Amino acid sequence: VDASSTAFNLDALVEHCKTDFIPHTILIDLTKSWEVAQLHVDWLSKGIHVVTANNLGLSSDLGLYYSIWHQRAETQANYAYEITVGGTMPVIATLNSLHSSGDTIERVEGILSCTMGYVLSKVSPWEGEPMKFSDALVEVHKLGFTESDIMHDISGEDSARKLLILSRDMGLELEMDQIQIEPILDGIQVDHKDIQNSAKQYDEAVAKLSADAKEKGMVLRYVSTIDGSTGACRVGVIKVPISDRLARVTGIVYSVAFYTSRSGSTPMVVQSPAMPSTAGVFSDLIRVARDLGARDTGNPRLKALRRHSFSVELGKKRGPASPKSIGSDKRKKMSCYSEL
Amino acid sequence: VDASSTAFNLDALVEHCKTDFIPHTILIDLTKSWEVAQLHVDWLSKGIHVVTANNLGLSSDLGLYYSIWHQRAETQANYAYEITVGGTMPVIATLNSLHSSGDTIERVEGILSCTMGYVLSKVSPWEGEPMKFSDALVEVHKLGFTESDIMHDISGEDSARKLLILSRDMGLELEMDQIQIEPILDGIQVDHKDIQNSAKQYDEAVAKLSADAKEKGMVLRYVSTIDGSTGACRVGVIKVPISDRLARVTGIVYSVAFYTSRSGSTPMVVQSPAMPSTAGVFSDLIRVARDLGARDTGNPRLKALRRHSFSVELGKKRGPASPKSIGSDKRKKMSCYSEL
Repeated sequence: VDASSTAFNLDALVEHCKTDFIPHTILIDLTKSWEVAQLHVDWLSKGIHVVTANNLGLSSDLGLYYSIWHQRAETQANYAYEITVGGTMPVIATLNSLHSSGDTIERVEGILSCTMGYVLSKVSPWEGEPMKFSDALVEVHKLGFTESDIMHDISGEDSARKLLILSRDMGLELEMDQIQIEPILDGIQVDHKDIQNSAKQYDEAVAKLSADAKEKGMVLRYVSTIDGSTGACRVGVIKVPISDRLARVTGIVYSVAFYTSRSGSTPMVVQSPAMPSTAGVFSDLIRVARDLGARDTGNPRLKALRRHSFSVELGKKRGPASPKSIGSDKRKKMSCYSEL
Repeated sequence: VDASSTAFNLDALVEHCKTDFIPHTILIDLTKSWEVAQLHVDWLSKGIHVVTANNLGLSSDLGLYYSIWHQRAETQANYAYEITVGGTMPVIATLNSLHSSGDTIERVEGILSCTMGYVLSKVSPWEGEPMKFSDALVEVHKLGFTESDIMHDISGEDSARKLLILSRDMGLELEMDQIQIEPILDGIQVDHKDIQNSAKQYDEAVAKLSADAKEKGMVLRYVSTIDGSTGACRVGVIKVPISDRLARVTGIVYSVAFYTSRSGSTPMVVQSPAMPSTAGVFSDLIRVARDLGARDTGNPRLKALRRHSFSVELGKKRGPASPKSIGSDKRKKMSCYSEL
């Protein structure tokens, strides 16, 4: 769809969706379109709630970021974007929870591109033989989690956008060009249409980097970091000792560690394999619904169970059994170690 | 405070708190008291919201668990208990999010007692010399994260209660005696008032277990598991290969892994050092407030920043800068590997 027709259809769609007789309208943006991202502010200003997997609204210029924030506060329309950072796992929620409980985030360290995380774990594995760079790229592309142009992953742009959202949510006022981005190799260019052949020329150089690291007991990892105190943000390859937490992160995985003033040197970590983004969008939708007054009445699964298994005696003082303590009979049980 | 006077004062307190002219009352239970836990249902039935760090309401008999759930649904009073499992980190929230997005939890695997997690990581470290069992117990006690009687940690009761809450939230209808609990050593008894001397007698046996595991390239870890399909729950020591994720979990740390039908063999993991429980209680309080209509208007930190840094032009179509892509100048930058 070209830009002009997109805009036209969208305006009509928005008018159609936003009616007076339905109390709440939610628009879900699953595009990667800059044209659509620009409309988020307008939607919010009309009181339309937005659930977005499109990160271009929050990760473009700071002015647009603040516009979104401002309209959100003005109209109390919700803007749910958990899915834009770290897939379905609760990165934004954890950040907010740390903030709201008064903790200070000193450092964020994450594998924000599951594609590059996977590639690096293959070309510089903590055990076993390293894979060729071009083979690893082809493999990860086949798995279907690469960006529409694999250069967005390789160049660091994908990670940088996510890092920008996190840093702004931490209160840092950064633009994209303030993020230090260091690609794997100087001047690297891979053609999305012919990954195997266009990436081949880099195999040797990447293999050498991996071998050099291995000699020192290290592996290469593609890591994004935010220094909370200086505001310095960086995306790039680092060497980590083979025993490090990050060295062991393998697979198509997102991983974010928060070092806070309360956590000290042991970070709070959320880590998850990449999952279908629909799952994250659905969670965000439910979060918005709760925000709009859909009260939390507990686990819906229990509702079904309760029907056939339990009838509560209302108004009657319960004569409860005391909490069962682990008796000596339990303690006496033979200690038994599971076989692996 | 003995039971009768506690009950008396609490009734008066509840009457005092619950007035007609204040729309919402929240009671926060930071006790470890069974007497207080029994009152949760009454509070909920009066429409009083409950934030609880006391896990005895949810981890005693299933009837009480369902009563809490039922009153919650009836009166729409909130019951916030995130802090009861895994300290301040989002375990319950992650479980709910997985559920609500339609995922199926196949297996939960966690270090739910940070005390025992720490002790096992010391007596069976993945590198370096093992510590004496009695010394590790004394050390962890000094750090201040043990239960009021260290036997609650050592016996597995602390882990089992948390596991029970998780399993029930997953829809499994289990009582405490259905959880298989295997203590470190058969018949182990440690006196909280004299940990060092009373634990000394077990040092040799624990050291032998650790050495046996090490011979096979393994370490001992104190792990709680739920098998989602069979409903089997287990708390106890297992051997894990030294390269395993769990082998590397050190410090006073909670760690929970969710294996779901979407995640496959790579679990979703939340991990966090133990933090002051007040932080978790405060997060729960904010969650309740949001549920009661305190709309999410974004990060409060941004509100302060916005004042001096940004004025939005309302009603005016923005002439936005296009999203800054990572230009070739960025890509040309010398690849640089950080020194560690």
